[in-house]
This record gives sequence, C-alpha cells and structure tokens, in this order.
Amino acid sequence: MNIDSMIDDIMDSYEKQGGINRSGAENFPNRQNVVSVLQDLQSLIFPGFKYEENIGTGNLRYITGLHVNRIISILTTEIQKALVFVVSNKDGGEANSTEDEKKEIQNSHCYPLAEKVVCALIKEIPEIRRLVQLDVAAAVRGDPAAMNKEEVILSYPGLEAIVVHRIAYFLYKNGVPIIPRIMSEHVHGKTGIDIHPGAKIGESFFIDHGTGIVIGETTVIGNNVKIYQGVTLGALSVKKELQNAKRHPTVEDDVTIYAGATILGGETVIGKGSTIGGNTWVTKSVPAGTVFTK
Amino acid sequence: MNIDSMIDDIMDSYEKQGGINRSGAENFPNRQNVVSVLQDLQSLIFPGFKYEENIGTGNLRYITGLHVNRIISILTTEIQKALVFVVSNKDGGEANSTEDEKKEIQNSHCYPLAEKVVCALIKEIPEIRRLVQLDVAAAVRGDPAAMNKEEVILSYPGLEAIVVHRIAYFLYKNGVPIIPRIMSEHVHGKTGIDIHPGAKIGESFFIDHGTGIVIGETTVIGNNVKIYQGVTLGALSVKKELQNAKRHPTVEDDVTIYAGATILGGETVIGKGSTIGGNTWVTKSVPAGTVFTK
Amino acid sequence: MNIDSMIDDIMDSYEKQGGINRSGAENFPNRQNVVSVLQDLQSLIFPGFKYEENIGTGNLRYITGLHVNRIISILTTEIQKALVFVVSNKDGGEANSTEDEKKEIQNSHCYPLAEKVVCALIKEIPEIRRLVQLDVAAAVRGDPAAMNKEEVILSYPGLEAIVVHRIAYFLYKNGVPIIPRIMSEHVHGKTGIDIHPGAKIGESFFIDHGTGIVIGETTVIGNNVKIYQGVTLGALSVKKELQNAKRHPTVEDDVTIYAGATILGGETVIGKGSTIGGNTWVTKSVPAGTVFTK
Amino acid sequence: MNIDSMIDDIMDSYEKQGGINRSGAENFPNRQNVVSVLQDLQSLIFPGFKYEENIGTGNLRYITGLHVNRIISILTTEIQKALVFVVSNKDGGEANSTEDEKKEIQNSHCYPLAEKVVCALIKEIPEIRRLVQLDVAAAVRGDPAAMNKEEVILSYPGLEAIVVHRIAYFLYKNGVPIIPRIMSEHVHGKTGIDIHPGAKIGESFFIDHGTGIVIGETTVIGNNVKIYQGVTLGALSVKKELQNAKRHPTVEDDVTIYAGATILGGETVIGKGSTIGGNTWVTKSVPAGTVFTK
Amino acid sequence: MNIDSMIDDIMDSYEKQGGINRSGAENFPNRQNVVSVLQDLQSLIFPGFKYEENIGTGNLRYITGLHVNRIISILTTEIQKALVFVVSNKDGGEANSTEDEKKEIQNSHCYPLAEKVVCALIKEIPEIRRLVQLDVAAAVRGDPAAMNKEEVILSYPGLEAIVVHRIAYFLYKNGVPIIPRIMSEHVHGKTGIDIHPGAKIGESFFIDHGTGIVIGETTVIGNNVKIYQGVTLGALSVKKELQNAKRHPTVEDDVTIYAGATILGGETVIGKGSTIGGNTWVTKSVPAGTVFTK
Amino acid sequence: MNIDSMIDDIMDSYEKQGGINRSGAENFPNRQNVVSVLQDLQSLIFPGFKYEENIGTGNLRYITGLHVNRIISILTTEIQKALVFVVSNKDGGEANSTEDEKKEIQNSHCYPLAEKVVCALIKEIPEIRRLVQLDVAAAVRGDPAAMNKEEVILSYPGLEAIVVHRIAYFLYKNGVPIIPRIMSEHVHGKTGIDIHPGAKIGESFFIDHGTGIVIGETTVIGNNVKIYQGVTLGALSVKKELQNAKRHPTVEDDVTIYAGATILGGETVIGKGSTIGGNTWVTKSVPAGTVFTK
Repeated sequence: MNIDSMIDDIMDSYEKQGGINRSGAENFPNRQNVVSVLQDLQSLIFPGFKYEENIGTGNLRYITGLHVNRIISILTTEIQKALVFVVSNKDGGEANSTEDEKKEIQNSHCYPLAEKVVCALIKEIPEIRRLVQLDVAAAVRGDPAAMNKEEVILSYPGLEAIVVHRIAYFLYKNGVPIIPRIMSEHVHGKTGIDIHPGAKIGESFFIDHGTGIVIGETTVIGNNVKIYQGVTLGALSVKKELQNAKRHPTVEDDVTIYAGATILGGETVIGKGSTIGGNTWVTKSVPAGTVFTK
Repeated sequence: MNIDSMIDDIMDSYEKQGGINRSGAENFPNRQNVVSVLQDLQSLIFPGFKYEENIGTGNLRYITGLHVNRIISILTTEIQKALVFVVSNKDGGEANSTEDEKKEIQNSHCYPLAEKVVCALIKEIPEIRRLVQLDVAAAVRGDPAAMNKEEVILSYPGLEAIVVHRIAYFLYKNGVPIIPRIMSEHVHGKTGIDIHPGAKIGESFFIDHGTGIVIGETTVIGNNVKIYQGVTLGALSVKKELQNAKRHPTVEDDVTIYAGATILGGETVIGKGSTIGGNTWVTKSVPAGTVFTK
Repeated sequence: MNIDSMIDDIMDSYEKQGGINRSGAENFPNRQNVVSVLQDLQSLIFPGFKYEENIGTGNLRYITGLHVNRIISILTTEIQKALVFVVSNKDGGEANSTEDEKKEIQNSHCYPLAEKVVCALIKEIPEIRRLVQLDVAAAVRGDPAAMNKEEVILSYPGLEAIVVHRIAYFLYKNGVPIIPRIMSEHVHGKTGIDIHPGAKIGESFFIDHGTGIVIGETTVIGNNVKIYQGVTLGALSVKKELQNAKRHPTVEDDVTIYAGATILGGETVIGKGSTIGGNTWVTKSVPAGTVFTK
Repeated sequence: MNIDSMIDDIMDSYEKQGGINRSGAENFPNRQNVVSVLQDLQSLIFPGFKYEENIGTGNLRYITGLHVNRIISILTTEIQKALVFVVSNKDGGEANSTEDEKKEIQNSHCYPLAEKVVCALIKEIPEIRRLVQLDVAAAVRGDPAAMNKEEVILSYPGLEAIVVHRIAYFLYKNGVPIIPRIMSEHVHGKTGIDIHPGAKIGESFFIDHGTGIVIGETTVIGNNVKIYQGVTLGALSVKKELQNAKRHPTVEDDVTIYAGATILGGETVIGKGSTIGGNTWVTKSVPAGTVFTK
Repeated sequence: MNIDSMIDDIMDSYEKQGGINRSGAENFPNRQNVVSVLQDLQSLIFPGFKYEENIGTGNLRYITGLHVNRIISILTTEIQKALVFVVSNKDGGEANSTEDEKKEIQNSHCYPLAEKVVCALIKEIPEIRRLVQLDVAAAVRGDPAAMNKEEVILSYPGLEAIVVHRIAYFLYKNGVPIIPRIMSEHVHGKTGIDIHPGAKIGESFFIDHGTGIVIGETTVIGNNVKIYQGVTLGALSVKKELQNAKRHPTVEDDVTIYAGATILGGETVIGKGSTIGGNTWVTKSVPAGTVFTK
Repeated sequence: MNIDSMIDDIMDSYEKQGGINRSGAENFPNRQNVVSVLQDLQSLIFPGFKYEENIGTGNLRYITGLHVNRIISILTTEIQKALVFVVSNKDGGEANSTEDEKKEIQNSHCYPLAEKVVCALIKEIPEIRRLVQLDVAAAVRGDPAAMNKEEVILSYPGLEAIVVHRIAYFLYKNGVPIIPRIMSEHVHGKTGIDIHPGAKIGESFFIDHGTGIVIGETTVIGNNVKIYQGVTLGALSVKKELQNAKRHPTVEDDVTIYAGATILGGETVIGKGSTIGGNTWVTKSVPAGTVFTK
C-alpha cells in the first residue's frame, strides 16, 4: 500500500472539492460545544435530574453559578462564530474596506451581539422553567401511564424535545443562525422528534411517544395541545422561493392530534378544541370543535 | 453582565417553581446508573458481543462475577431510591410517626425489597437468555437479509429493544417503579422503538426495522409474532381514570403486522395466524386466520 | 444472597444456550471499533466539521495521515475477523485439513483480502467526497429552511445517513460481510433512517427529516431523488428463500416521494420525474411523469 | 495454567495472612480521595495557578464555592473513616454494648467531630494563605535564581512541600489520624521532602532544592529559617517507647542550615541566627549566632 | 515556518541516528503496561488498600480473578517481548536459518518461557504476602511515629519500594530481562529509593524516610535490617568488566544503618547485629556487634 | 456550617493577600500544558519508547507531524504568555502609551518572539538527538548493570533528567523565562535530580542513580563527565545581588564525581580527568588528574 499517494489524492480532493471542507474550522460553530451547552442549560432547568451532580442545599448556588459561567463562555463564542460566518458569506459588506478590516469589523460587531443574546437567554431561564413546568403537568394529565412528574422528567423523550425547543426557539427568534438548528437536530437524533427551531408553541404542550413527529419552521401551536407519534405539521410545497412565507399550519388551543396524522399548508388552521384522528390527511382548515377522521 | 443577579433569579425560580427541581437529588433514581446497569445486564446476556471485553475461557467466570456484583450494588440502590420516592409521595404513611421515623421505616422496608428483586432478576438471567435466543432465531428466520445469528445480535436494533424489554418487564411485574421506564425510554431513544415495560410479550418475537413502533402498557402479544416499523398497538382513549384498565390490544400467536398499521383498544384481539396489512387502521377484533388489508 | 450459585447458573446457561454467547469474542468484529472507524472516515470527508479537531493549513496533511493510518490498522483487522467468521461458518472448507490448518488458511487468505478492500476504500474517498458534495447541494436546493451548505453538513441527519451509506455500500459491494450492516444500523440508531448497505443510490440524493425511512437491500435509486420521513421502499414478501432475489423497488431519476409513502416489490418501478404523494401505498409500477396520490 | 487453583491460593492467603488485607475497605480512608482534596485545597490557596481552571472575575466565587463543597463532602467522610478506624482498634469501648451499638456510637461521635475539623480547616484557609505568602516572599529573597513570586509558586517543590505541610499540620494538631500522614507522604513522593505532619514550623520558611530533607514529628522551627537539600532534623534514638517524647531538634529564628547537615535529638537547640554548614553532624545544642562547620 | 522541512530533518535524523529510536516499537516492552501490571500486583497483595476498589466479601474472589487474568495477559506479552528483544540482539542464533525462521523460533521459545514465569509469579503471591506482612510489622516496631499497620501500608514509601522490589527480584532471578528494572525505576521515581532488582533482601526489612537510598545489584541483606534515608550500598569500582562479579556489600542479620552512610565493595561485610552511624564511609568489613561511627 | 460566610472570608483573603493569587490566570503559563509539550518533545526524541504509540513505517511521519504541530501550537502560546508576563512586570515600558496600547505592543512583540524560539527548538531536535545518543552510550559504558541502550532509554531516570535539561537549556539560553524552570522542576519531581536550566553541560554526560543531585544555574560541565547520587554543584554564597555572577563550579572533561560530594563556588574548577571521592567537600579548585578524597 502506498499510503502517501493515497493521502495525496485526498489532499488533492480537498483542493478541488473545496465546498465541503473547511480548513480553518476553528472559525465555525462546533457541534460538541453546542451540545455540551445544552446539557448545562438542562441542568439549570432541572437541577439534579439530568446529569450526575451531587446537589444539596449547600452547593446549589455554586453549581448554578458554574453552569451560568460555562454557558456564557462557551455559547457566546459559538454564537459569535455563527454570526461572523453568516455575515462573511453575504454579498456586499462595507465597500472599500480590506479583507482584514472587514473581518475586524465583523468580529467586533458580532461579539457584543452574541454576548447580549446569551445574557438574554440566561435571564429567560426562569420563564422557560415556568413553561416547562406546565409542560410536565400536561404530560401527567395526558398520559394514563404517567405515574408522577418525576417519571416524566426522567424518562419522557417528548419532554426533552420540548425543553430543547423552548431554548432553541428563544435563540432563533433573537436572530442566532445555525446554532438553534444544531440543538434541534441533536434532540431529533435522540428522540426521533423533529421540531424546527422556528415553530411557535404555546403553553402546556404534550407529545406522547413522539417518534417520527415533524413540526415545520412556520408552524404556530396554541395552548394545551397534545400530539402523538408520527404526526407531521408540514408544508404543501417545498419551493425554495417560499423560504420566508408561512408554509406550515396553525393549531389553535386545546387541539389533540392522534398518531400519524399529516396536516399541511400555511393557511391550514385546526380550530380550537378540535380532534384530528390517527393517520388522517389534512390540507384544509378545520373549524373549531371538529372531530376529524378519515 | 451582572452574573450574580442572573443567578439570583434562577435560584429564586427554584424556590417558587419548585415542582420540577430537586435539591437532594441523591435520593432520586439516577438515569446514568440505570443505563450503566443495562450494559452489565446485556453483557451477561451476550458475553463478548456488546461491549469491549477480552473474554476467554480463563476469565469468563470472573467477568461474569463482576457484572453480577455491579448489578447488585448499583441496581439495588437505584431501586431502593425509586421505592422510597414512591412511598414518600403517597398519602398516609404510618400515623403518629415523626418525619425521621417515617423515613427510617421506609428505608428499612425498601432496601430488603430492592435486594430481593435484584436477586430475582439475576436468577432470571438464564431464562431471559433462553427467550432471547428464540428471538434471535426468529429474526434469522424472518428477515431474508439476515445472514446469521451473529449479525442479528451485533446490529439489529429490534433485538436490542426486545432484550431491554424482557429485563424491564421483569422489574415492572415485580413492582419496581420508574426504573423500568427509564430503561425502556433509553432504548426507545436508541432505536425509535417504544415498548412500555408493562407489555406482555411471548416467545420468538421479531421486530424488523422498528423505527416508530409503539406498544402500550397493557398490550398482550403471543408467540411467533412479527411486527414492522411504524406499527402502533395503542389505546382508543387516553383518559387518566383508565390508568388501571386494559387499554391496549391483544395479539395472538403467529400474527404478522406490517409497517404503519395502527391497532387500538383494550378489547381488540388479533386472532391467531392473522396478517395485518401495512398502513391499516384496526379498532375492532379480527378473527383467527384473517388477512386484513385496507 | 448466594452469589456464587447465581453465577454458576449463568455459566451453566452459557454452556447450554451457547448459540448467543461467544467466548473467544476477540475473533468477532467489534462494534465499537467499527463505529470509531466511521468517525475517522467522516473526518476525512468533512475535515474540521464533525469532530473537534483544530485544523489549519499546517497540520491538515498530518491529521489526514493519522486518520488514514487508523482506518488501515483498525478496519483491516475488523474486516478480516468478519471474513474469517463467515468462512468458518460455511460448510465444506478444505477436505482433509485439520482444524489448525483450516484456521491458518482462512487467516492467511482473509488478511490480504481485507487489506485490499480497505486500501480500495481509502482510494475511493475522493469519489465519495464528490458524491457527498452533490448530496449537500441537493439538500440546500431542496429544503426552503436550509440556509447554506455548512448548516446542512453540521446538522442534517439525512446527510449523515447518506454519507454512511455511501461508505457501507462500497464495502458491501466489495464483499465485506457484517461490517457494513453494523455501520448502517449505527446511523439508523442516530437518525431513524434505515438504509440497507446493499441499496444502490444515485447522485444528488436528498432525505428530509428522515425519521422512519426504510430502504431495502435490493432497492435501486436514480439521480436527483428526494424522499421524506416515514417512506418505506420495501419488499412484498419476506420469504427467506428470496434472499438473493430483487425484492425492493426501483426509483428512477428526478422522483420525489412524500412522507409516509410505502412502495413495495422488486418489480415496482417509479418512473422518471414522478411524484408520489404522502401516505400512499404503491405496489405496482408508476409510469414516468406521474403524480400519484391516494 | 490452572487459574482457579492459583486464585484459591491467594484467597487462602487472605484468610491466613489477614493482617495486611482488608475486605470491607470502604471503611478505611482512601488515598486517592485524600490526594484529590489536597488539589482542591491548593486551588483555594493559589487560585488559577496549580490546576487548569479558566478563572475570571465572573466565576472565581463559584469555583471557590465548588472547591469548598467538595472538600466538605469528601474530606469529612475520609476523616470520619480514619476516626472510626482508630476508635475501633482501641481496647475497651463502652462495656456492655453490642458490636452494632458500638459501631453506631462510634459513627455518630465521629461524624460531627470530622465535620467540625473540616469546617475549621476551611476557616483557616485565609490564615494559611497569609503564611504561604510569607513563604513565597522568603523564597524570592533567599534564592538568587528566583526571578519572581510567580516562578516560585509555579515551579518550586520546596514551596509545595511547605503548603501541604501547613494543611497537614492543622489537621494533625486537631487530632485527625492517618490523613495528615497520607498528605505528607504524597508530597514526599513528589518532592523528596519528608516533613512529618507534627513538625511545628514558623513564618517565612524557605526550602531550596529540597530532595532528601527529613523533618521529624516533634521538630520545632522558628521564623525566617532556610534549609537546603539533604538536611535531616532527626531523632537520636528510635525506641518505640519514646513515641510521645520530644525526639527532634528545635531550630530558632533566622537560622540557615546548608545541604546535607544532620541535626539530631530532642534537646538539641540551634540558637537564633546561627548558620549550620553543609554535611555537618550536630547532636548538641549550638548557641545563638554560631557559624558551625566541620 | 516551513513545517514540512522541519519534519524532514527529524525524519532524517531517525535514519541516521537510528540507535535511539525504534519504529516497530510494538516489539519492545511497554513501560505503561508494566506499570499497570504493578498496580494489579499490589492490589493482589493489599486488596482494597491501594487503588479504589469497592471490595466486599461478595466480590473479592472476582476482583482477584480479574487481576490475575490481567497480569497473565499483559505481563506474559511484555516479558515475551523482552525475551525476544534480548535473544535477537545476541550474536549467533541458529545457523543456516533465515530471518523469518529465526524470529519464529524466538517467538515460539519465548512465549512458553514468559507464560511459565508469570504463572510462577502468581503462585508466589502468597509467599510475597507473607514476607510483606513481616516488613509491615518491622516498620511498626521500628518507627516511633508509626501508629498502626494500616498507616504504614497506606503511606510509607519505604514499604512500597520493598513490595515492588520483592516482585521485581522474583522476575530477575527467574531470568526476565528489562522488565524488573522498569519496575524498580518506576518506584525509584515515586519514592527516591533505588533498589536494583538483583539485590537479595531478607525478612522483616525496614526503610525509614528512604529518599536517596541506593542498593546495588549484588547486595545481600539479612533479616531484621533497618536502613535510613541516603544510605548507599554500592560498588568500589564501576568497571564494565565487573558486570558479573559481586560488587556490592553484604549486610548480615539485625543490622541498623543510619542516614547518609556509604558502604562500598563486594567483599565488605557488615557483621550481625552491628550499627553503622550516620554519614559514615565504610569500605572494609565490620565485625559482628560493632557500633561504627566516624 | 455557614458555607457562604466561609467563602466570603476566602474571597476576602484573595482581595487582601493578592500577591499569590491571580484571577485572569489565562495570561499566565500553564504547568500542565508545559508538561504535555515535554511529552511531545520526548516522543520526537525517542519515537515509540516513551509513550504508548503504535509506530510503524507507515505512520511515523504523520505522528511526527502531529507532535510538531502540537508543540508549535501549545508551546508558542505558553512562551508568549511567559514573555508578556515578564515584560509587564518590568518598570518603564514605553512612556506615554496607555495601558491598552502597552498590552497590545507587548502582545505583538512577544508572539513573533515566541514563534521564532519554538521554530528554532524544533530545528534543534536532530542536534538534541545526536547529543542524547551520546549520553545513552555513556550510560551503557559507565554502568556495569546496564544491559543495553534500550534498557537505559526505558528505565534510567538520569537519562530522562539529561534529556529534559537539554531541551530546557535551549529555551533558557534563547531567553525564554519561567517555562524552562517548570520543565526542570517537573523532571526534578520525577527523578530527584535538580539541574537548573542555565547549567551548561557537555557531551556524553552520565548520571547514575541520581537522587539528590543539585546542579546550579551557572555550572559549566565538560565532556565525558560522570556524577552519582547526592552530588551538589552549588554556590558558596546565596546573596541575591549575585544573581548575575558565576556562582557555581566548572567541571572539566573526563571527570568522575562520586556520591554525596559537595563542590561549591563559581571559581572552583575540577581539572580535566580528576576523580572526586564520595562525601567530599570541595570549595577550591582541583588540578587536572587529581584523585581527591577526604
């Protein structure tokens, strides 16, 4: 085996097929860092539940402080890298400035922006905890098999997907690129539940079983909604030019959607209090209070 | 950034939104410990297959002994914590006893109980191995793509889900709370197959592909049953008061259920030898020998 | 608790229920090694993207060299073990030769074979990178929510499934047993996308969301095909004797298959440019240019 | 090789030669825990110097808090075990009490004692820091090769030995058995400097090079003392019955002892301001202001 | 910086200055493996004392079994490599045999030899434990500061040096090259006590403080001997041609040698019951019962 | 226990006793990084000997490349931090410049300086290897107990001390502050041999046993010198104002210094070919060819 020539060929391919490799990868968000910050955030939300930490009254404040510090130091850097990347790839930039000046400007603009959003996220933690507590209560109410809140927190993948979504959504709506998607795809891999960070979801949301659920970017979901495994809230068309249009459905308060139902279209509204049966196919709005079956 | 005030707010939220955080988390079952015990149990069932261990005739007994010891020491503690948690959260307790006495009593009752069930589980290993061997053979028979038993053991997610279920079911039916559910949701995350630990499943069970399968708590499945990806064996109603009722179907011996079929209801019985077609919707019983399609 | 007698029972079960345990496991492919090689291969394909590596112009060649060396040393051994295992389990072998001679012969035949295929795989990397680059571009074109190539590489599970498939398929078609399946089931666990290593897939393939997709061993897929979550490309019959027949469909160029569609049968052909609607059930060929809905 | 019979012989030896093995080792202080607490203590004394920690103004308090919590939780347990061990091995105990009662009493007495001493140690940290700061300044003054305080803190083994001694001495004089000795022997291994935890050492102590230094249990050292490598402050007799007598010398303020000097005996006093030459042998007192050479 | 040319220069130096680099290093004993086996051996000698292991009556046998298995598998390989290395570097070898044949023969001769000596070492453990127990008792008797056996085992570097020596000496006298020296230099680094593996040491040996002690290859030490820090038992001449001569002293039973004494020469005998004073220089024999001072 | 008030006291002590703590520790050289670079450097000098690396002809260049890259990236940063630290602590600086400008200037001056010296160090590796090879040969010649070069490389602490010294000396004479001392004190801890990085040492240097050796900053040693354990090459006076004077002895070619000898003074010269006896005390020059004993 001539190893050197095999390596030459690969190096060559990096030159020619440059589009998918990045030397200088330190300027690009790092997946592992984002995932590790997600763990810190979940530890703040459920102290003592998710990751092995010997928490007592004596050290709760100090463990909290360390999570907060770690989030600030790691997430700020990753968000800054994501912002710089997006700014750099846009046309234009400031005319007449050299490459170095441009980079400098981007860096100096992006860092305070990143710092501000991370700070806002940490301030949002108590509100996210309030929402998540309602989600936990909804799971206990909604699932006959649920014994108590603790079992839900410890074992329900649906809850983990919602918690991560509430974090990713906060970053998404504050203009952070790429990072929220890395978060949502990470929990998609763990749970089979694919919620785009852009989806707007109300209080007391309950997902049961969850595998195969897809919730699109422009979906709007009200309060007290329950959905089961394999439900799709999707688009009718996937044309690239619709990128900024509302392409996914609206689900009003108190709706239940059973397993395998497919609801498509940006103008499709599932009216308040409706029930959508399993394996149904819905591409038009459904009035409030409907029980929709095949 | 005023970090201290942000931390104050989070600490405050722990005070007020107490329901989902636990200081004193050392008294609550630990997910990582439960998952690590699952690895020990799988190593006992398939020595040398699952986790890197240099097993030879000289050390098999010693490696076996260490797994057994680790299971005893870790799982007993976790089960005890789960029992204490459930007992403590129930109303009543022994009247006139102080908090400390109550705690003492619970602890002293719960530990021997936990020890007894762990001991029983280890004694059950040979029986679980017998069942799993039949499951492996069913996979080789049932999948044209399966080359041999070893490939099934090394790579089929369906088999992993079944093995974990057989362990979790043993604990469930012996009255262990929370732990079995942590086990089944762990393997749900890895495989997309969601089998409630309460489901009763016969011999020679085969799951192909598996992603999206949901099998509810009161399901009963006979021998030689095959099911494919996306099959739901669910409830018709999810009212909380049905918590103790049989809500999920019965599947008799020699039944095959193809991908995406949904079978609902506690009184729904799929008769012996039937075949349920893909993407079908079944809410009533089907007589033995039926081929059911849309 | 009499631990020794419990261990005796388990040891006994290893004697009697020998079919699923292997002492001498060092002669069997090791799952963790295969997974770690997959990481090396993905690092070669997307240097700097997937795993934390501080890559710059100064060290790219050296990191590349180490990945290549690690792949050669680990994968060659694992493939050799898989080959020896398969050869040993076949009837026949060379008559009149003793056990030791047989083992020797197998080992000496299998090692050069393994070395040759690993060498070929590394030489194939530039071609795999070319294909993967087209797959990335297809994702950016096909998903309105995709912001840029980098987001796709960092976060799309569909892309990860395709990349691993292109590696596993290369090994499969070069006659490597067991290993490709371990690879595809590993990424199945991570993404919920189950592509058998034998499936033949053209250029510019795009999978969106992906959870629940099943693509069978003898499937043939053309160029520019898009498929969504929950799609099955499966067999009409799962009789063991069909092991070597074409049992799964053919999908021609420029076809889109929406979520939950089930397409079955080895003679079923989805004609060029067709669109298959969501939740449809297709067991017969569809002419080119068809829009197929329920 | 008959492994089982070899193991039998070793097990047998544990039965018969019981004196140096302990099953039930969890009731005995654990060396690794003690060493890890030493690291926490040194991190408190020199934050950011000794162990990799990214310390800034934002997180210093939180890192401090965690070290304090870890010291409390680990060291309290280890000291309790040491106390229980020593109490259990003494004759007597409370007459008429059963084994279990005795154990209970010991445990309940020992835990509060351990907690109290750990609490006192943490309160002593600021005083220890004050002393260590003087020791650092003494090193900078005393060694022409020392560039600055930071170099001394980062690299001088003599300083590390003194810091650990100041901690071990505090525990020793507060009645903690075994643990202080584990600490001093740990730093003896790292530096070649062997200071018994019982030695009483004044302010501004400087050790240069240090290898081979031995300072005995009942040594008393004043302020501003400098000693070099290979110096022994030892006993004239090592009779066991002298266990509680002052067996080691007294060194008054402002004394310098050059390399290889041996000073022996509990009544030997090196008078204030004296200089003891290298390789000398001193078994009688030396008046203040003496320059003692061979 | 032109990194490639700097690497070229280093590669070049490997070509030209070949004597101290080894590609193909896998054929050479590995220091880390030898050190890890030393830990297994010490765990066998002091179960539960040295390394964190949760030992109870239930698992002692299994932990013992695993240590034994690990010693067999690792140490046999390392000894074989050492034997092959030494055989290969000797002149001659079997005439007329090719390189490959030679290597084969060496390997096949060396492996059974290595296996035999490892087996013998494990059988020797009970005897080594008997000796070590006497050494522990000697330390308790000999050091007024020693509180009990446990403190000695947990913290005395002198004891660790003796234990490792008793292991290394067994291998040395059974003809194992290089490995015993790696062991003794490892403990030399930890304790400052340098005992050549060839030194023959009697029962109830006590080393106090220990730093700087040197005991040469052909030293012979009787029973009940005590030595202090900085003692040298060395050679009068270090001519290479004396390699196989007795170059180091003989110390008879019941001798005490105080700190810093230097005793040189192969014919120098320290007679039974003598005491050698600190910092003395001895190059001639001393009759039994002498108190030798400057 | 009031933990918060204990932490307050420690925080307070950081305010008041600021001299030995550094928040902002990231601007200070990190001991662990320096030690890890030492391992990379030793791997370059003895590839395959020191740390577990599976080196073969195929990957030697790539492993070499990675070590070189790691040294460049880690050591450059650490040296820059050391330079910035020293510059910042000096009086003066550039008048009229603000704090930020000063910092900027220091950083921009220090980085290229650091880069240059690291580059020079890597270019020096072949020369260091040439010297070390001579040192290894000297050990084999000088120690009757040395079996071969490989045993010396694998186990002699004296050789490790010399190798580290040759690296540290190169950095020292190129003006790197603090780092060389961290290196030499690290190996001092491991071997008991304390060589100041400033000492100038010739070819073919041999240290036997080594514990307790001290070699001062301005020592000059010729070729073919042998020294034994406990030898001091020290200063007659340790007055701080002698910081830049030659304070330590000169040892000419072909000198042997036996164990425990003390040689002091900057004008003391041990003439070519002399032998200095054990435990001697030398403060005046010794003519060439002398055999010096007490």
